[in-house]
Amino acid sequence: MADSKRPHVVILGGGFAGLSAARTLKRADVRITLVDRSNHHVFQPLLYQAATAAVSPGDITAPIRFLLRKQRNARVLMASAESIDVEGKCVRLDRGDDLHYDYLIVATGARHAYFGRDEWEEHAPGLKSIEDALEIRNRFLAAFEEAERCDDEAERRAWLTFVIVGAGPTGVELAGVMPVIARKALAGDYRAIDAAGTRVILVEGLDRVLTAYPESLSARAKRDLEELGVQVRTGARVTAIEEDCVHIGDERIPCRNVFWAAGNQASSLGKKLGVETDRAGRVPVEPDLSVPGHSEVFAVGDLAAVKWGDKLVPGVAPAANQQGKHAARGILADLAGRARKPFRYLDKGNLATIGRNRAIADFGWLRVRGRLAWFLWLFVHILYLVGFRNRLSVLLQWAYAYFTFQRGVRLITQVEKREG
Amino acid sequence: MADSKRPHVVILGGGFAGLSAARTLKRADVRITLVDRSNHHVFQPLLYQAATAAVSPGDITAPIRFLLRKQRNARVLMASAESIDVEGKCVRLDRGDDLHYDYLIVATGARHAYFGRDEWEEHAPGLKSIEDALEIRNRFLAAFEEAERCDDEAERRAWLTFVIVGAGPTGVELAGVMPVIARKALAGDYRAIDAAGTRVILVEGLDRVLTAYPESLSARAKRDLEELGVQVRTGARVTAIEEDCVHIGDERIPCRNVFWAAGNQASSLGKKLGVETDRAGRVPVEPDLSVPGHSEVFAVGDLAAVKWGDKLVPGVAPAANQQGKHAARGILADLAGRARKPFRYLDKGNLATIGRNRAIADFGWLRVRGRLAWFLWLFVHILYLVGFRNRLSVLLQWAYAYFTFQRGVRLITQVEKREG
Repeated sequence: MADSKRPHVVILGGGFAGLSAARTLKRADVRITLVDRSNHHVFQPLLYQAATAAVSPGDITAPIRFLLRKQRNARVLMASAESIDVEGKCVRLDRGDDLHYDYLIVATGARHAYFGRDEWEEHAPGLKSIEDALEIRNRFLAAFEEAERCDDEAERRAWLTFVIVGAGPTGVELAGVMPVIARKALAGDYRAIDAAGTRVILVEGLDRVLTAYPESLSARAKRDLEELGVQVRTGARVTAIEEDCVHIGDERIPCRNVFWAAGNQASSLGKKLGVETDRAGRVPVEPDLSVPGHSEVFAVGDLAAVKWGDKLVPGVAPAANQQGKHAARGILADLAGRARKPFRYLDKGNLATIGRNRAIADFGWLRVRGRLAWFLWLFVHILYLVGFRNRLSVLLQWAYAYFTFQRGVRLITQVEKREG
Repeated sequence: MADSKRPHVVILGGGFAGLSAARTLKRADVRITLVDRSNHHVFQPLLYQAATAAVSPGDITAPIRFLLRKQRNARVLMASAESIDVEGKCVRLDRGDDLHYDYLIVATGARHAYFGRDEWEEHAPGLKSIEDALEIRNRFLAAFEEAERCDDEAERRAWLTFVIVGAGPTGVELAGVMPVIARKALAGDYRAIDAAGTRVILVEGLDRVLTAYPESLSARAKRDLEELGVQVRTGARVTAIEEDCVHIGDERIPCRNVFWAAGNQASSLGKKLGVETDRAGRVPVEPDLSVPGHSEVFAVGDLAAVKWGDKLVPGVAPAANQQGKHAARGILADLAGRARKPFRYLDKGNLATIGRNRAIADFGWLRVRGRLAWFLWLFVHILYLVGFRNRLSVLLQWAYAYFTFQRGVRLITQVEKREG
């Protein structure tokens, strides 16, 4: 069949969902164009490791086109999708160029959201991309430099106070690792400050941490965090964030660094699909993951609101993988003249790490905690980490960090300040 | 002796010269303050490896305060020195705070310079810092993305043409590795472009490449480069650099990326020492490396013009190390009531790599080239690379790049473009 007669599948987003959709279509007689505004796939579950200087950004990323290099029916475009014309079956890219599609899979994910307080973003960066991770790493490491340079004791304490908002997996992971870094990796390097005096506060609006887990594991995670030196404040609301302080309820805490791990807002492309999105901007989908009224358009991953019993499928990597694959299988079914099947989420369980050697795991029939859960976490994440080299290199860097308590990548990058 | 009575040695710059000065004073009864505007020491000889995506920035850097953590008489300040009052023995920092010194060692190095054509900098970044390396890496990798997206054949060729100005070690290293990356690492990943069609042009104003080497080795290096696919143009002058072209003599070459490896300008702090600097901004020094008229002030490394026969000591890492050490020994001599000795440069020879497995080495009594020289180069650089972990990790990444032809760190970072 001539190239231009093969159906054109456009995939927006090279995260877990988009990538797994492309791979599922590997042998299909289609042309695939995967569009992402960055050149790399990010292994999101390890972003917090890059944000806390344990691994280099390059270790948890891989070029999307490298991952698809052997798939001859796929091409990758580094471009930003600006809008979607579902009636005209066309995606408008950032330079005004159009991509016509026969099938469209929208997998552009979510960004962190500030509950309508966008002005907080400047003082409280979130963690979704490699650029976010670098921003957090730079701020975290620079805080100790500022504290060392500082003459005023109150000011110094503010630099050594870190507030993390949101006690989901990302917030817990960030909070759990920070006091350990301050006490072990950084402590001996400073003269004027006592890095062990670092204060890490984890703020959560709900009444417990890691609410996706059973209460017993939540309680264990909280205890683990407190043993590591984290102040956990559940049922507490952040009411203001300024450059030099954060307000929790009525209390003003002098603090120079706030990191945001609460709330997501789906990519704005979801609003261009002609259906009403939910409060978090997610697109409601049919059982086959297609967008209501447009069976040729699919929404998958963090962008989609996929029903799972009376809840929604959680925004985790395995769920995104499964959805991407399912959307691709819907296209395969169409091409073969078969009926599409409804999506069924296979819950593989939940894993979250706390600090350097504790974790909690919930597989429904099995609950694990402590060091065993941590090794399980390590194993699963290395197993899934994309690309052989990265796997080996990251393992080595973790081993280094684990046995020496040192952080390998304590690099503050900056816009070069020129002299004169 | 009370802390405040011990002589205060201020060192500006945490490169090879500054760091070796600090270390030489390890057991001295002095207080040392090392000031650097970044938090990390950069292993400069491998910067080009970071610029070409072979290693992560974190692999060739180490926090300065980590390197000095066990030296109790030293503290490290992340700050920028704005000016020096040699009469008042005082350094003014970027926030208006003053550092009074008894001894001052200025080791702030050099930046690349554009022969008075500063407007070229925007289109032709140089390679001195980690930020520079990231800029070059981003531009180099993004060029292939642009070419892949491009409809126009002439425009595509301009994206795939890379011009490197200056055939010193940095220019030769960059030029030698780029065609290999394009042919081997990237070639299979693109659909619309033939990455093997990449054109790399190395421009040198003098009549041969690597002029610090004997003519026979220069000739060999040129041949090696040409075999790798580099167009070497010696005795050629760049007359203009614009966004979409470069002019070499009268010829206009459409080209989207120019990298600058020609010409240095010493740090502007050299001009604050009260002596006339040379054309490249370097400070002339006494035989003991002190600044004329101020025996308590030393200028070392790329900032200093140190006589070596009828030439100057070259701006290489071993020379910077030796100078830093010598300045520190001058202070030690003062403290012990001994006379200072004149500096004598010990030339350990020159090593430069060309592409992935060739190099040239000149030890005066011995000249080596080809693969043997390359292994020598590898050995020497790993040996000297600061910090055990980095050594191992970098070795592994090189091995990976060497045996697979792949680049491990193909990451384009960018200022996050928000949607909507």
